[in-house]
Amino acid sequence: MRYAALFLLALGVRAQTQLLDLSLPQRQMPAYVRERLTPEDRVLFDKLMRVGLESAWAVVTVEGYPNCFINELTPLKPDQRMVGRARTIRYLPNRKDLRARLYAASPQLNYKSAEEAQPGDVLVFDAGGETRSAVSGGVTTTRFLVRGGAGLVVDGAMRDVLELAAMHLPVYMRRGQAAAVSPIQMSVDYQVPVRIGGVTVVPGDILVGETHGILVIPAEIAHKVADKGLDHDEQEDFQRQLLLQGESIYGVYPLNEANRKRFEEYQKRRQLR
Amino acid sequence: MRYAALFLLALGVRAQTQLLDLSLPQRQMPAYVRERLTPEDRVLFDKLMRVGLESAWAVVTVEGYPNCFINELTPLKPDQRMVGRARTIRYLPNRKDLRARLYAASPQLNYKSAEEAQPGDVLVFDAGGETRSAVSGGVTTTRFLVRGGAGLVVDGAMRDVLELAAMHLPVYMRRGQAAAVSPIQMSVDYQVPVRIGGVTVVPGDILVGETHGILVIPAEIAHKVADKGLDHDEQEDFQRQLLLQGESIYGVYPLNEANRKRFEEYQKRRQLR
Amino acid sequence: MRYAALFLLALGVRAQTQLLDLSLPQRQMPAYVRERLTPEDRVLFDKLMRVGLESAWAVVTVEGYPNCFINELTPLKPDQRMVGRARTIRYLPNRKDLRARLYAASPQLNYKSAEEAQPGDVLVFDAGGETRSAVSGGVTTTRFLVRGGAGLVVDGAMRDVLELAAMHLPVYMRRGQAAAVSPIQMSVDYQVPVRIGGVTVVPGDILVGETHGILVIPAEIAHKVADKGLDHDEQEDFQRQLLLQGESIYGVYPLNEANRKRFEEYQKRRQLR
Amino acid sequence: MRYAALFLLALGVRAQTQLLDLSLPQRQMPAYVRERLTPEDRVLFDKLMRVGLESAWAVVTVEGYPNCFINELTPLKPDQRMVGRARTIRYLPNRKDLRARLYAASPQLNYKSAEEAQPGDVLVFDAGGETRSAVSGGVTTTRFLVRGGAGLVVDGAMRDVLELAAMHLPVYMRRGQAAAVSPIQMSVDYQVPVRIGGVTVVPGDILVGETHGILVIPAEIAHKVADKGLDHDEQEDFQRQLLLQGESIYGVYPLNEANRKRFEEYQKRRQLR
Amino acid sequence: MRYAALFLLALGVRAQTQLLDLSLPQRQMPAYVRERLTPEDRVLFDKLMRVGLESAWAVVTVEGYPNCFINELTPLKPDQRMVGRARTIRYLPNRKDLRARLYAASPQLNYKSAEEAQPGDVLVFDAGGETRSAVSGGVTTTRFLVRGGAGLVVDGAMRDVLELAAMHLPVYMRRGQAAAVSPIQMSVDYQVPVRIGGVTVVPGDILVGETHGILVIPAEIAHKVADKGLDHDEQEDFQRQLLLQGESIYGVYPLNEANRKRFEEYQKRRQLR
Amino acid sequence: MRYAALFLLALGVRAQTQLLDLSLPQRQMPAYVRERLTPEDRVLFDKLMRVGLESAWAVVTVEGYPNCFINELTPLKPDQRMVGRARTIRYLPNRKDLRARLYAASPQLNYKSAEEAQPGDVLVFDAGGETRSAVSGGVTTTRFLVRGGAGLVVDGAMRDVLELAAMHLPVYMRRGQAAAVSPIQMSVDYQVPVRIGGVTVVPGDILVGETHGILVIPAEIAHKVADKGLDHDEQEDFQRQLLLQGESIYGVYPLNEANRKRFEEYQKRRQLR
Repeated sequence: MRYAALFLLALGVRAQTQLLDLSLPQRQMPAYVRERLTPEDRVLFDKLMRVGLESAWAVVTVEGYPNCFINELTPLKPDQRMVGRARTIRYLPNRKDLRARLYAASPQLNYKSAEEAQPGDVLVFDAGGETRSAVSGGVTTTRFLVRGGAGLVVDGAMRDVLELAAMHLPVYMRRGQAAAVSPIQMSVDYQVPVRIGGVTVVPGDILVGETHGILVIPAEIAHKVADKGLDHDEQEDFQRQLLLQGESIYGVYPLNEANRKRFEEYQKRRQLR
Repeated sequence: MRYAALFLLALGVRAQTQLLDLSLPQRQMPAYVRERLTPEDRVLFDKLMRVGLESAWAVVTVEGYPNCFINELTPLKPDQRMVGRARTIRYLPNRKDLRARLYAASPQLNYKSAEEAQPGDVLVFDAGGETRSAVSGGVTTTRFLVRGGAGLVVDGAMRDVLELAAMHLPVYMRRGQAAAVSPIQMSVDYQVPVRIGGVTVVPGDILVGETHGILVIPAEIAHKVADKGLDHDEQEDFQRQLLLQGESIYGVYPLNEANRKRFEEYQKRRQLR
Repeated sequence: MRYAALFLLALGVRAQTQLLDLSLPQRQMPAYVRERLTPEDRVLFDKLMRVGLESAWAVVTVEGYPNCFINELTPLKPDQRMVGRARTIRYLPNRKDLRARLYAASPQLNYKSAEEAQPGDVLVFDAGGETRSAVSGGVTTTRFLVRGGAGLVVDGAMRDVLELAAMHLPVYMRRGQAAAVSPIQMSVDYQVPVRIGGVTVVPGDILVGETHGILVIPAEIAHKVADKGLDHDEQEDFQRQLLLQGESIYGVYPLNEANRKRFEEYQKRRQLR
Repeated sequence: MRYAALFLLALGVRAQTQLLDLSLPQRQMPAYVRERLTPEDRVLFDKLMRVGLESAWAVVTVEGYPNCFINELTPLKPDQRMVGRARTIRYLPNRKDLRARLYAASPQLNYKSAEEAQPGDVLVFDAGGETRSAVSGGVTTTRFLVRGGAGLVVDGAMRDVLELAAMHLPVYMRRGQAAAVSPIQMSVDYQVPVRIGGVTVVPGDILVGETHGILVIPAEIAHKVADKGLDHDEQEDFQRQLLLQGESIYGVYPLNEANRKRFEEYQKRRQLR
Repeated sequence: MRYAALFLLALGVRAQTQLLDLSLPQRQMPAYVRERLTPEDRVLFDKLMRVGLESAWAVVTVEGYPNCFINELTPLKPDQRMVGRARTIRYLPNRKDLRARLYAASPQLNYKSAEEAQPGDVLVFDAGGETRSAVSGGVTTTRFLVRGGAGLVVDGAMRDVLELAAMHLPVYMRRGQAAAVSPIQMSVDYQVPVRIGGVTVVPGDILVGETHGILVIPAEIAHKVADKGLDHDEQEDFQRQLLLQGESIYGVYPLNEANRKRFEEYQKRRQLR
Repeated sequence: MRYAALFLLALGVRAQTQLLDLSLPQRQMPAYVRERLTPEDRVLFDKLMRVGLESAWAVVTVEGYPNCFINELTPLKPDQRMVGRARTIRYLPNRKDLRARLYAASPQLNYKSAEEAQPGDVLVFDAGGETRSAVSGGVTTTRFLVRGGAGLVVDGAMRDVLELAAMHLPVYMRRGQAAAVSPIQMSVDYQVPVRIGGVTVVPGDILVGETHGILVIPAEIAHKVADKGLDHDEQEDFQRQLLLQGESIYGVYPLNEANRKRFEEYQKRRQLR
């Protein structure tokens, strides 16, 4: 994620200014969330706002989780990064008797999840891909936003899409929909493992979303993923710099022996700065 | 379901023998299941082996369950009726940490469900439509069969399809698959409400399967569905008889006043027999 | 379609009896339809019961109709040929005001089409591929059958699939469904051009159905299609015979000069018989 | 739709400026259409430019039209609202004889519909989802624009996408396509009920489009939908305000007794202003 | 595959005759192919006609080929096993200049592949899933049959489906189609690696097809797969026998220590016979 | 593509300023590519940057290539035109033995193609629509960019989507993906004809991409397509002008005799300027 500066550096030398679009997206945790995080989360989330998604993916995969990237949902606003902790809700096709039983015992789970959300939470709705009816909408999401909500991930549809677009909140879904949850669907489970775009999401997972998808990171390895991912980014920045100077891809990616030494020197110089 | 005889009767009068294919499927509960049912279940299941699926559907819908028919799965052997009680299992995409936790606490749920099955049970596997890996296979199903299992409903895939085809057991699934459950999927929940082909199935539901799909009946209304459905079948038999005698559809379907009287007389005659 | 005999002939010479499955399907118009056809239709339909579907397709295409084969629907009973004349009905998603207006003016169109059907008619239901609700069912189809109906083609779903399977009536559809037409759909148009599996069907078209699909033939060219198609079949029978005698595909398919002469002699011998 | 101001108000108090993206889309009827509307339409369309789509959806549904929202098409330019009156055209797969007959009797229907369009009309093309060929393009749409056209809704594809994007005209379609209508498709019906993304559209319906879809409103209830929808928006604005002040979702959404009284006072204060 | 006898044995003891459908499919290589195989192939193919597909799959996977099962195609005749060696052909959407160039250099590849086929070959057509046009048909396949062809695998469509069904030849495809290959497609590559239903097939691979799919076995490991698969079948037969005698699945599948000893004794007894 | 100026002209007369959105996209070849093209390519590519895609499509179709437009991929950045020459790579599902053989003989083909790219090349990846794994990413594309690469067309997925978005490089793909090419896919063929979104692309083809798709032009006809297409654009500009002055579509599109004369005069006046 540091490559913007590197690009400028390289391009300064070579004046290939056309190679670069300057409007590189900025990735910052919104203050209304960041200020309310625990110190530990703030450190973690800050790193995850910067890490390259592909670098992080590589670490998650090496740790034994090869099926960790959701790319079947569409971001409502593409130039945002989402970082947050999964709070899950599961929906099923509506069924009168079960609905009566569940809703007698607890509020609808989009209400409950918004009300109980902690700063930095991402609500994860597993609606089985159903888009003929929405699982939640703008008013409930306003409550979630006030609670410090950091994003929505919906394997299904949301209402009030204009209102969601006006909030500073990343939203991933299959489609928008004006129709309410009833009479097509109902919420049935809260904080259980769910299926989103072919990937299992467990409550407490750390989610990192970008334009092209959402990386699902088991909480136990989140710090490792952030640190190793950032290390890997540094190496890729170096490789990119060599390529922008006109070197061949062979020997640079992956690094051959000679270039690895150059990289180690580059790292030392950077650490001195 | 009684229309076979009626057809013959009507056709005897009119000699339109070509209208009828005599190989009408027989719908009988297999003895290895039927003998082990409770007396109450035996009465209920016998009725549900005979009732017209559309008549039963009408009752379930009128009772407030309009989304009760699964037609997205394919029967392995089309000329069988399945009647049984749902025992549900839910699968998710594989995930190392969750799998380790769940499988430490309990056997894989296809094993557990086969072992705990009661006579007349139908195993209902919600695999989210995944067909790149099978949820269960022939050996485990043999155990289920010996326990008195009455059918399999799989929103996903099964292995050992030849072996399943050789069993006297209705099987509904998306596709067959030789690949085992690992490393694509894992079982996560047992006896919870699940989603099958767009319909919610609750543990204990009564399932009635035919060539073209599976009717999901909440247990509370199963007797009413069977009885009212059979009544409705009787009326349709009468209507069909009138049509085979050459009467117009108007006045017969639905019955007009005059034909309703004829139907009531027909019912009386039948009850005298 | 004459190749069965040719196969036997050829195989008698070479004793490769394993090449042939003797249960070749018989293609005959059912008597209850055939006896009630006009003499002209009887001649046409008899030819179309025998013609090779691919030979007929070639003629239809050469006549300027390249998009004439529907292969997206599934036959309920695969070993039947359907020949008949299209009577079309168009469905739309249900809409209260339009339904009230249309149904006040005319009966539902599955009733009306069954009642008005002529011997040899095929009902063609354009339901836009909707399979969550059926356009018609067994009772109405019984009336259609008594009227001399020759087949059903449904870009959607039918109810009462068991009953339909017991009738001597070819049925093509996407899926079966127990749910009635209401409240999902309504019939809106009768005897208008419709879209079935990506092909336009015009009222009065001649339809020829087989296991793998339905050929749509504009009525004006139906006799030409039947005659030229049967001629083409004869040539393919000859080619097949040469191949079964072990000749190379080159020179036989298509016929080279020498083999074309042999074919002309073969034709003469056949005409003498 | 008034919530932008409310957000600012609430946020002024609480200084949570990050919750809000100020670039809220403006929803105004373009002058070239608005000035040419009848006075009655101008009143109606102005209201429908402002009403919340979900509020309006709720009224349409309560009035007996639950299947009234099209969310399967993609808007070419997402930040526009479309309000207009449906003028429908139906397409079928090309067929030589039918095309010759229809095109001898009338111009192609994209021409005819553009030429006959009234100010505020939306052309609604039912192409059955076909995207291998476009139903119309930029030149014809230029004529439509000059006539006061208010939008395009295409269950299929359009050509000249760049040119359409440069017009001040909302366009909904499945995909763009460079290929012309021939030889894949042909127009067959004008001003008949059509199927668009699973919803029936009747000529004369009032359409309200947003980023996430199009609400289809029967003309008879359009004024009621606008008025009741705006009322509902006012209540949701109040609820949103309470939530932005930090109140719990319970009691606010839906309003409990106490909050309903507060809302009535809020309404009185607003009416005094 | 030996379980039929075991079933009978077990059921003789327990008289649960209803558990078994006696019409178990027979799996034999047709004589017209078998007699013309090399002795080595005959041994291999005979084993592969008997091995359990799931047992074979397990060996292929352990050898490092986890993506080896094609389950997206439909068998034309479900109760056949196919064993043979892949001969591949690749198709692309038609393109005038490329077609002219390729067809000037070589015959169409369905001709060429039929003509050059060796006994036991399976033609594998990669048509990219295209079903609007067929890659080959009955006449060409007759030549292939005479050459000793053992099956067809088509990621696309075939013509002359009735004729194919009458041949003793397993056929897997997406759909049937009457339309010829032109003008939609053309053959471009012969004996190159292809993609079939998501699986790579390399020329010379050994294919084993069943009702539910096709196992793709690299030639180098085919003997190992056959032998280890048959061993595994033997163990599963034993496990199945224990289950049919009423033992619990736990301890039997997988075998615990005690049951493993019983299995070793069972193996010894079998080898003595 | 010249219509922007025409619009302004017409609108100056009629003051319908609202008809036009002034932010018309500019279509210019980036200098880092343009400067390195051969003079001949520079002339051709400059024309193709300006030609209307639909006008060009018409010429390609008339020349005998009706299936030449790819509209199934999504542009990463919609307001860019891509012009370049196809360099193709074909991927298949991973397979251990084939991968070992291929990768021993040559580098992975995304490397090789980036390294060998000539200025103005477009890399065309046929991944069969696979989106669970990416064929290439940002570092390799950086090398391609430095080599003068002009675009990416991927029937599959790319990694490093943020980085690609920051490059001045049009990218078309199905979806983004963080997962690397292994272990799902492998590159197998270089510079062979491939299938992209249902269209055949041959190495050396000239590709012209816009928001709504990519036109594939055989190299032999590229100059003719550019020239005739620009001529056709001129006529459409004139037609558009007439329509903006309020004339009827009839007589203008297509031009009747009188308007054709006006067009010829218009052309003369333009040539004098």
